[in-house]
Formats: sequence, structure tokens, C-alpha cells
Amino acid sequence: MFNFNEEAVRKEHENGVSIIAETQRVVDKICGEGYKNIFYIGIGGTLLYAGQMMHIVKEAGSTIPLFLENAADFCLVGNPHFGKDSVVVIASISGDTKEVVEAVHKAHAAGARVVGYVEKEGTPLYEHSDDLITTVGGEYYFWYTVTLRLMANAGQFPQYDKFMTEIVHMPENVVEIYKKSDAKAKEYADKYCDAELTYLIGSGNLEDWAVCYGMCIMEEMQWMRTRPISAANFFHGTLEVVERDIPVILIKGEDKTRPQMERAEKFVNTISANVTVFDTKDYELKGISDEFRGMLSPIVMRSAFQRVSVHLEHNRRHPLAIRRYYRRLDY
Amino acid sequence: MFNFNEEAVRKEHENGVSIIAETQRVVDKICGEGYKNIFYIGIGGTLLYAGQMMHIVKEAGSTIPLFLENAADFCLVGNPHFGKDSVVVIASISGDTKEVVEAVHKAHAAGARVVGYVEKEGTPLYEHSDDLITTVGGEYYFWYTVTLRLMANAGQFPQYDKFMTEIVHMPENVVEIYKKSDAKAKEYADKYCDAELTYLIGSGNLEDWAVCYGMCIMEEMQWMRTRPISAANFFHGTLEVVERDIPVILIKGEDKTRPQMERAEKFVNTISANVTVFDTKDYELKGISDEFRGMLSPIVMRSAFQRVSVHLEHNRRHPLAIRRYYRRLDY
Repeated sequence: MFNFNEEAVRKEHENGVSIIAETQRVVDKICGEGYKNIFYIGIGGTLLYAGQMMHIVKEAGSTIPLFLENAADFCLVGNPHFGKDSVVVIASISGDTKEVVEAVHKAHAAGARVVGYVEKEGTPLYEHSDDLITTVGGEYYFWYTVTLRLMANAGQFPQYDKFMTEIVHMPENVVEIYKKSDAKAKEYADKYCDAELTYLIGSGNLEDWAVCYGMCIMEEMQWMRTRPISAANFFHGTLEVVERDIPVILIKGEDKTRPQMERAEKFVNTISANVTVFDTKDYELKGISDEFRGMLSPIVMRSAFQRVSVHLEHNRRHPLAIRRYYRRLDY
Repeated sequence: MFNFNEEAVRKEHENGVSIIAETQRVVDKICGEGYKNIFYIGIGGTLLYAGQMMHIVKEAGSTIPLFLENAADFCLVGNPHFGKDSVVVIASISGDTKEVVEAVHKAHAAGARVVGYVEKEGTPLYEHSDDLITTVGGEYYFWYTVTLRLMANAGQFPQYDKFMTEIVHMPENVVEIYKKSDAKAKEYADKYCDAELTYLIGSGNLEDWAVCYGMCIMEEMQWMRTRPISAANFFHGTLEVVERDIPVILIKGEDKTRPQMERAEKFVNTISANVTVFDTKDYELKGISDEFRGMLSPIVMRSAFQRVSVHLEHNRRHPLAIRRYYRRLDY
């Protein structure tokens, strides 16, 4: 399979599994000490990853006091619910995102604690997290563990132990998703790599995921123009610009909002002849109970789209690592 | 001035002012009876209008228990914080938006109360609101009164009376904004009415406003392709697609997030030769204290952009009322 390092993929997800116990310990400590509320703070992709968790908490029926904050807004505006008994949770791959570093300093100045997932040693967020979780490729496992353990400790996710017994099967499942999605990913990239504008529609815990893929991969890493939109809002404006030749990607998961995606799929197939559907249902998840499939849709979708990224990168002869402005210009 | 009915514009805003007393009475009644939390529910433009209020509440430092819900998500997923002691607040011009009607039925089934602003008599939302506020063109005055009165009654907006004494000057100010913005709006529309894709950047209480203009006016009513993006997230992906000929609209208000817009403005002017800045600071607000200007930025910006819509409609020979799919196809 083109540009595929099976061992590296498996290892990243095994890294993720390996941080679960420590992440759990940190959450238990926080719950033991008591907290007023939890702030997931991020910007760009890290905000959009945390946003997926917000939907998962809601859909699971949990009322844990959780806030989602854009780091730039948090720095300039603050949040009246925030205080010394708040706990900040951040995930930063680079460990030095300007707005997030500033937000952490602001949180500390208020006396709050910071739990950080950071991949790069010695960076500001690595140094300034009060509780640090670190590995490579384990971001989702960090988010799921923090979120679901907070819910479990509040008596609002009794399936926690079962979920964690099963999630260890994800590294192997993910490798299989990469393999199974490759043909479709290549077909998509072959047909649409030069699209002038691509619409991405997602819902539920994949709403922010769709925005993230459009923004962080297609715009940032491929310089492709995109218009991400939620399935719900799509019908209240964006639908009017769909025409026969408009490329639309539907990002279908398995949570309770799936009917929104089915509605969007029916509509866009009536108007556009350039619709691609990526559906988590196409992938087997061995060792995972059906009740958890919807919750895990983001990991499944990300794995399938990793193959899209590989083929876009090749077809466009545009290495994913190239940036022209981001962190290269002073702004 | 082209296609401008001064009296009609003034009248709509006077209508808005005229519903303040009754809206206030409804909020006082609810606060008197007690409530657990408030749910602003909408979809598309109505969700994005309510979203502007969420920022205003946060920036004012208020901790009233306020939730923002997409009506489609609310219907399929629900919200664990919602219950019989919740109060739903909705605004619907048409009074029959499918998802919002369904959400109101769901709220009623749970035993919750519904406060509705509806412009069309006899429609489902007109009939099913427990407390109904109705007029034409007064949506913003409804939202400001509900939001600020809830804050005031919680002891979190002591400037309430002063604000309401001053807001009566807005109808006259709005008329002047229409007049003053016209030349710039025409210049913009003359230059960019045929743009293949337009980026709109907003922040703070204009972040959702920018999304709304891109989606509800440009996409829905002009079939123009847009990519709305917040100033904060812009720097984490979208910036990479900006090039010399990319049209960008900056939607600058006067709340605490203004520095984010200044940063975006500096950057896009370095890269794109097609930047248009709309700034609420360009407009005088007679009888309005400086401390309220930031809070009122959405009304100011909407008034300026009403002239953009008029000129786009004319230049594109595309009446704003045309729809090809919305409420015309079965989907």
C-alpha cells in the first residue's frame, strides 16, 4: 500500500492505549481533590478535537460542568465561570502554540490547575502543565480517557470499565481501517485533488471533525479551498450553492445525529453529481461493542481520512509539511 | 439612495423598541416564577443570532445558566441539562421552521416553557409559544432585552436601565448607518459581486454574525460561495489559502476581541490585494455611551451590510427572495 508504515500506525495507537492508566490516575486525583468545573481550551485543530468530546458528553446524557473555550477568546475576554477551582485540560502536539501557552499562564495566574497532553518534550506546555501526559499519536486516547473518566466518576458513565477493556482493540482496528479505506481514498483523491472548492458536511461528534479536516488538512496542509458546514445548518443557507459539479464530502458517523447526514446525503445526491460519502459503518471494529461505535466514530473517520491525506499529498505533489505563512511569517 | 425606504427602516427598528417593555415583563415573570436554566434554540440564522448573545453574556461577565442549542441536534440528541424547569427562548421570522417547531414540541413534552419571538401570525410557533412577542423587524431588540434583563435580574448587569434608556436612539442611528455605509457597500459590491469565493472573518459577538451573513445572505440569497471563519481559528489553517487575488471581508466590531481582528487585518493585507474592512467604529452612535458600543456591534454591522445586500442583489440581478431548493424541494 502506497506510503503506509503499518508498524508506525499501530505503534501510535498503542502509545495512546499506554497513556490511559496514567490519564485515569490524574483524573481520579482531580476528582478526589474536588473541582468547580472543567475547561477544555484549544485553538484551531485542538479546539475542534475537544469540541468532539463536548458532543459525546451531551449524547451520553452527562451533566458534568464542562466548558469549551477558544484560547484566543479566553485570553482577551476570559470566562466568568472560570476560577481557581477550575481545571484546564489542553492538548497540544507542538507544545508551543502561542494562544494556548498564553491561556495556560492566565489560568495559572487565576490559581487553576492545568492538565496537558503534549507531544514535544521541553516545550512551554510540557513544562507548564501541572499534570502532564506525553507520548506520540495518543491524543484521542487522552481525550476519551479524561472525558469518560470524569463522567464515570460523576456516576454518569457506568460502562466505563467495559469501554476501556475494549478500546485496547483499537490499534489493530485502526490498522485495518487504513487498509480498507485506501482504495476509496485513492479514488476520491484521483477524482477531486484539483477541485476548486470542496464542501464538507458533518454532524454530531463529526461536525467539528469535518471542520478540522477541511481547515487543518485541506486548507493548511494542501492549500485546497474548503467550506465545512454542519448537516443541520447546511439546510439553512449553504444548500443553495450546491450545483451539479460541486464536490461534496459527507462525513457520516454513527451517533444519534446520523439522520441529519442521511437527509443531507439524499439532498446532495439529487443536485450534485460529485458526492463522496465516507461512512464509519463501512468499517468493522473487532472487540468493540455496538453501543460504543457511535462514540468512537471520530477515531474511525480520522483513520480513513489519513489515507485521503496520503493520496492528496501525492496527487497534488504537495507535501503535507509545507507551510507558506503559518509559523513562517510574523503576524 | 438606491432602493432605500428610510421610513420602513426606521419603522422596523421602532417596532423593535416597542416590544422592549412587553419582553421585559415576560422575563420578569419567568424570573419571578423561577427557572433552572435558559435554552436559546435555533437553526441556521436564528441559531447564529442567539450565538451573538452568548458572547455578549460572557464578555459582560455574567454567569446566568444559559445554553445554546441547535434545534436539529436538540430533537435527535436532547440535552441532559434540559428539563421541566428550563425555559426555551426562540426567535423565528417565518414561525414555521421545521426543526424549531419540532424542538418546541419536544420542550413542551418535557414540561418546559417557551418564549417566542415570531413575525408571522397564525404560524405554529406563533400558536405554540407560551409567551409570544410579535412585531416586524424587532428580532435584535427581543434578543437584547431577554438577555440583558436575565442578567440584570441576576444582579449581573447593573447598567440595564441606562442601556434601555439609550437603545431608543438606535432607530435613528440605524437610518444614518444605512446612509453612511452606502458608498462603501456599493464600492464593495461593484468590485466583488462576481467573486468566485469570498472569505469572511469575524470575532467575538460578530463571529457568528459573519457566519450568518456568509451563509444566510451570500449563500442562500445570492448563491455566492463563501468561507466564513473566526479570526482566532483563521490563523490555524485557513490563512494558508489566502493569495493575492482572494477576496476577504473583515468584519470588525468593538468588543474585547477586536485585537484578533487587527491581527487578521494586518496579515491579510500583507498577502491579499482584495481586502475589504467593515468596521463599526466608522459609525457614530448618537445617544449611546461608549461602554455599550461593543455590545451593539451586531446591530451596527447588520445595518451597514443591509446596503451591501441591496447592491449585490442589483449588480448580480439576483433578487434576494429567489430560492431554488430551500422550501421548494422536498428533502
